[in-house]
Amino acid sequence: MEKNLTGPSKFNRTAVSVSEAQALIVPYINKSLIETIPLIEAHGRTLAEDVTSPHPYPFFRRSVMDGFAIHSDDTLSCSKDESVWLEVVDEIPCGFTSSVPVGRGQAARIMTGAHVPDETDAVVMLEMTENKIEDGRTYIRLQQVVTSGTNVTPIGFELDEGELILQGGRQILAGEMSVLATFGIHHVNVYRRPTVAIFATGTELLELEDPLQPGKIRNSNSYMLASQVREAGGEPIMLGSIMDDLALARLKVEEALEKYDLVVTSGGVSVGDYDIMGDLVRQDDVTMLFNKVSMRPGSVTTAAVKGGKLLFALSGNPGACFVGFELFVGPAIRKMMGVNNPYLPEWTAVLGTDYNRRNSFTRFVRARLDIREGMLYALPANIDESGVMVTIKDSDCLIVIPPETEGIKAGEQVKIIKLQGNRMW
Amino acid sequence: MEKNLTGPSKFNRTAVSVSEAQALIVPYINKSLIETIPLIEAHGRTLAEDVTSPHPYPFFRRSVMDGFAIHSDDTLSCSKDESVWLEVVDEIPCGFTSSVPVGRGQAARIMTGAHVPDETDAVVMLEMTENKIEDGRTYIRLQQVVTSGTNVTPIGFELDEGELILQGGRQILAGEMSVLATFGIHHVNVYRRPTVAIFATGTELLELEDPLQPGKIRNSNSYMLASQVREAGGEPIMLGSIMDDLALARLKVEEALEKYDLVVTSGGVSVGDYDIMGDLVRQDDVTMLFNKVSMRPGSVTTAAVKGGKLLFALSGNPGACFVGFELFVGPAIRKMMGVNNPYLPEWTAVLGTDYNRRNSFTRFVRARLDIREGMLYALPANIDESGVMVTIKDSDCLIVIPPETEGIKAGEQVKIIKLQGNRMW
Repeated sequence: MEKNLTGPSKFNRTAVSVSEAQALIVPYINKSLIETIPLIEAHGRTLAEDVTSPHPYPFFRRSVMDGFAIHSDDTLSCSKDESVWLEVVDEIPCGFTSSVPVGRGQAARIMTGAHVPDETDAVVMLEMTENKIEDGRTYIRLQQVVTSGTNVTPIGFELDEGELILQGGRQILAGEMSVLATFGIHHVNVYRRPTVAIFATGTELLELEDPLQPGKIRNSNSYMLASQVREAGGEPIMLGSIMDDLALARLKVEEALEKYDLVVTSGGVSVGDYDIMGDLVRQDDVTMLFNKVSMRPGSVTTAAVKGGKLLFALSGNPGACFVGFELFVGPAIRKMMGVNNPYLPEWTAVLGTDYNRRNSFTRFVRARLDIREGMLYALPANIDESGVMVTIKDSDCLIVIPPETEGIKAGEQVKIIKLQGNRMW
Repeated sequence: MEKNLTGPSKFNRTAVSVSEAQALIVPYINKSLIETIPLIEAHGRTLAEDVTSPHPYPFFRRSVMDGFAIHSDDTLSCSKDESVWLEVVDEIPCGFTSSVPVGRGQAARIMTGAHVPDETDAVVMLEMTENKIEDGRTYIRLQQVVTSGTNVTPIGFELDEGELILQGGRQILAGEMSVLATFGIHHVNVYRRPTVAIFATGTELLELEDPLQPGKIRNSNSYMLASQVREAGGEPIMLGSIMDDLALARLKVEEALEKYDLVVTSGGVSVGDYDIMGDLVRQDDVTMLFNKVSMRPGSVTTAAVKGGKLLFALSGNPGACFVGFELFVGPAIRKMMGVNNPYLPEWTAVLGTDYNRRNSFTRFVRARLDIREGMLYALPANIDESGVMVTIKDSDCLIVIPPETEGIKAGEQVKIIKLQGNRMW
């Protein structure tokens, strides 16, 4: 390895803001291909097209109760002192229609969810009736006026035919499953999960099975990134770690961009001597989108395009790597999967404890959310340096501290960004 | 099918409260078997044991910056007017240790994250130095006093050796991945995902591929339940639907309980005539835990034990089925997977719009959460009947309305239960 004892002159990078950086990426996000899959496999996927109701729902007049379908007019004279007796001429379980007409003065036993006979207009609850059997016929007694439509869910109560029920770009979870199954949509068009190649650069990196050596650390970022990719909906492809070598990195990136939809690396983007990813994105056949973002941690976060595909080169510092993924890579993956709003939600919260650090860049401080009496609190992690790994696991948001802020007191309002996938929410 | 024109006398069920019902289930929740799997496959799983740090982290004194490792004492006389020149005798990239001792009056070029030589005690930032080359030797100029420890992360800064880093029962997400990989824990002991058999009962049920018929509906609950099982961490097993027939249901339940860890059904628990699941749990070889819960929707939610395994018989009404799962089945699955607190979080929120319905039972009203100026708002769905399916997809919480409440005004505080898995959070 050639030694350079003085350091390079690579400090002259132009910083862009987080939102500028996000905007620079957008034109290069290619939506994944659309595939048709069985509904049962579609959990978590994103609909590739609008879905409209092929028929009204409910499709038929449905009984809300176990009871008796009746003509409401037959109850007009009912009162505590005046009973009406109706003859029960049929029974309609769920899944059946009436087998005989229900005339005036008659009723049909009906189950919850069953088809209300066309000629009847109300259902009286089972518990509100008494019954008797005379000459082999069954009668029920009513002592209250029942209004037309009582306990009958009308056709189209929930949805009319042709109504937009689910927009393209919507993620399919339990509620969407229910809707799609209700309308018999047994196959759906969804976006394919993007494949995301992950590798780390750094001569200091050991694989997990290797014994520790002085000066070396294990390649934990690739594992963290794999989880983040999964949470964003992508399919992580683990390509291990490579030593600090530009030619090797180049080869690896080229192979990965050819085979997979997106490449994410960690390490090799410092302003130091071993800025191999930084060098890589400065080469002729690569379009560098940005290599400095006015944020902490992760100011060296770099994005580039080669052969129409995105390459994200994140910091090797765990905290910076984590934040760089959440702000840039996660949204890109979600957009590739067709998600309508791929960015993390931004909310206002109350700062739970004083924050005293001063920054020249916008700082994204790891924090834990808490809800007390309807107020959302953000509690900053006690250690939050870019190189710190241990507080990532306890964070469910990032507090956005604007630059030049002279500390913020507990109780003041702050902007936060809700992180993806955690256990509290 | 035998007809019964008057209705049964099955109304005399004893209602238990939601928390009583949850408590009745607990003794019968068997934790899943523990399996050892590669870390990379462990995303979303629950740790089956405590993890303590096998070594301090960082494991060596680490440079925070790209710069020069120095003896801080050499800078004691530094000021704007008084420079100190140090000879650069080594360069230490990440992953290496120093190759020569760094004496007083000397410095070593060092990279972010690299091993700080034992004899030095501070790192000065690259950007704060100037350099010159004389007689083939490189020197750096310092003009500020540097205190001992500057830019050096001490051994064990994040974690000491033997510290409890992750408790058993914790779910493995990105932050946990990072910690486990950092410590070289390449295989982890986690709980197996429970297999959850799902079937629906009801002669009215069509499969998704079937054309509509009057009085019939598609079996959408099984699909919704499959998504809910996945979100809770289980593996759904789809067993389709069966017609209302006690013997058939019995056979299906027995087979399923033999092969899978848990059985969930929808339908067949009304107080009507086709209460086949209700009848099933009253049989001699089944221990019925409860068959009525003082809640709406889902008051007929039923739980039983047979052969040491849990059977949940949920309402066939989509809304009631959904709520029954979230309150009882989801927590059981999470507990089987070893999750420490398997219940959904309960928060206080501000009611976003008036709620005017009066109930004799506690009502769990589907609602959407919103955060405005740090306050959490819950906006009740406009239609929320137990049979309604269409608002499930837009709900991320349930508002808990106590019984006998005479309506609640917008702006009042309400208790909510955050639902699992949705897109906003």
